[in-house]
Amino acid sequence: MASGHAPAARVLDMGAMTEFDDAIAFVARADGEYAGHLPGTWAIGGAVNGGLTMALMAAVLGDRLGRNGGHVEPLALSAYFMSAASGDDVVLRTESLRTGRTMSTGQVTLHQQVDGRLVERTRATATFGDLARWSEPVLRGSEPPGLPGPDECVAATVQPVGFEVPPLMDRLDLRFHPDDVGWALGSPSGRGRLRAWLRFADGREPDAVSLLFFLDAMPPVAFDLGILGWAPTLEFTGYVRARPAPGWLRAEMSTQNVAGGLLEEDAVVWDSTGRVVAQSRQLAAVRFPPGLTVPGAASNG
Amino acid sequence: MASGHAPAARVLDMGAMTEFDDAIAFVARADGEYAGHLPGTWAIGGAVNGGLTMALMAAVLGDRLGRNGGHVEPLALSAYFMSAASGDDVVLRTESLRTGRTMSTGQVTLHQQVDGRLVERTRATATFGDLARWSEPVLRGSEPPGLPGPDECVAATVQPVGFEVPPLMDRLDLRFHPDDVGWALGSPSGRGRLRAWLRFADGREPDAVSLLFFLDAMPPVAFDLGILGWAPTLEFTGYVRARPAPGWLRAEMSTQNVAGGLLEEDAVVWDSTGRVVAQSRQLAAVRFPPGLTVPGAASNG
Repeated sequence: MASGHAPAARVLDMGAMTEFDDAIAFVARADGEYAGHLPGTWAIGGAVNGGLTMALMAAVLGDRLGRNGGHVEPLALSAYFMSAASGDDVVLRTESLRTGRTMSTGQVTLHQQVDGRLVERTRATATFGDLARWSEPVLRGSEPPGLPGPDECVAATVQPVGFEVPPLMDRLDLRFHPDDVGWALGSPSGRGRLRAWLRFADGREPDAVSLLFFLDAMPPVAFDLGILGWAPTLEFTGYVRARPAPGWLRAEMSTQNVAGGLLEEDAVVWDSTGRVVAQSRQLAAVRFPPGLTVPGAASNG
Repeated sequence: MASGHAPAARVLDMGAMTEFDDAIAFVARADGEYAGHLPGTWAIGGAVNGGLTMALMAAVLGDRLGRNGGHVEPLALSAYFMSAASGDDVVLRTESLRTGRTMSTGQVTLHQQVDGRLVERTRATATFGDLARWSEPVLRGSEPPGLPGPDECVAATVQPVGFEVPPLMDRLDLRFHPDDVGWALGSPSGRGRLRAWLRFADGREPDAVSLLFFLDAMPPVAFDLGILGWAPTLEFTGYVRARPAPGWLRAEMSTQNVAGGLLEEDAVVWDSTGRVVAQSRQLAAVRFPPGLTVPGAASNG
């Protein structure tokens, strides 16, 4: 794929082919402003999935920065979530901060109408480039987790008792390692780890922009510690390390530090060749159930 | 320490006590703008250390956001480095994005004069709060690395042959694990890991803002893979998880994925009680020496 034609620069009239392309379609207006629509069919817990929100923001910013220097694939993106986005129209505002020879950096903000005024939901700063330039050679890479085949894994329609399967799970084909679904059966492993196969339900192949969605598509890793419920992201930073090969992705989420109602969630995504293609860390807030003790909890502090 | 008097809101006339307080001193102007000075005595490779730059930005943004809601300690800060800062005056511009009950989010940009015009060097988005509210109880935490005592470790005045000890190393008392200094002797371990004790050379105790400096105070972890030289940071995100207790800090830096001239650097900092007080990940660029092979390199990709 020529770098000048990487998939970030997708516009409305090229969409309508897949659910994801429809969801991240946009129209460019004047002065670096864009219009889009976050579909309610990608919601979870009443809010549109943050990964989809970031993918739309990356697609738009790639379009803006690509006009400067051909740098249309996200290498790094950091997003701060100020309020939850609803399934509704959005306005995106972009700013080009630096155009270099091999990378460009910019900012994008996502806004929605609330009571007649535009409210900024999410702000992202990001650096874009040509992934072909920034992914070879591989000198060192994390090994993918040992996962039974997708057909031996557990479909993500499992949910804790009392939880409904959110609309997002119809967009996604997500298959958990059988050892990592105890939380859905009332016996979380306490390891703070979720491993799964992932792909789009409609067969759309992964690309650089979609990896920002897949990094944030799994349930909260806190589930595996017995902390169920909504875990809003405060900050998320994702790195795209290579264009993914077609086929299933594998992902592992984990957390090591859970304190004061905050935890970090680390995600790694491998493509079908077993190569690391994306990694992320986010800081999320959780509400500790009264009296909760976590297996493996630190005694210090 | 009362949350309204946490150390972020430090102004020039309170400084002059320690080297770090001097370096992050600032003067507030109108409209959320601030003036400061990055001292050349904190430089490394001709540029002022990025950790010091972020600490100054956090101090300024904490002052701005603290005026809204008393949220003066950084919980999460993400910075994009567009060009290297020199030891010189800086202008900082702040923006308040969201003031919540328990957290506030804002943005700060750092500028320097170049040929008569202000150039934006670094942009950071960050969320602030009261760390006492966000650090207890500890349900799970990474264990500190096994390190011999500071006097059995190797002072950071070790450098690869042909490298001068940078001015930054006079500000810092940094003692490496004896197993982690092979790179200075021509035989890097190849593990991609650096473990050390850290504190300010003048005895100034650590606090929340200074942790952003300590997270980025170690040499590039790429040294331990035999990749010597300048490793500029593209993006850095740090989380402060607790106010550090007085005394020595311990830090561990590591990398797992090195490809295409980019690597992630993960850092964790523990305080003298053995508690995780800060963690970060950054994406850095390195130049691979011709013919380099890294022990433990992945065969895939």
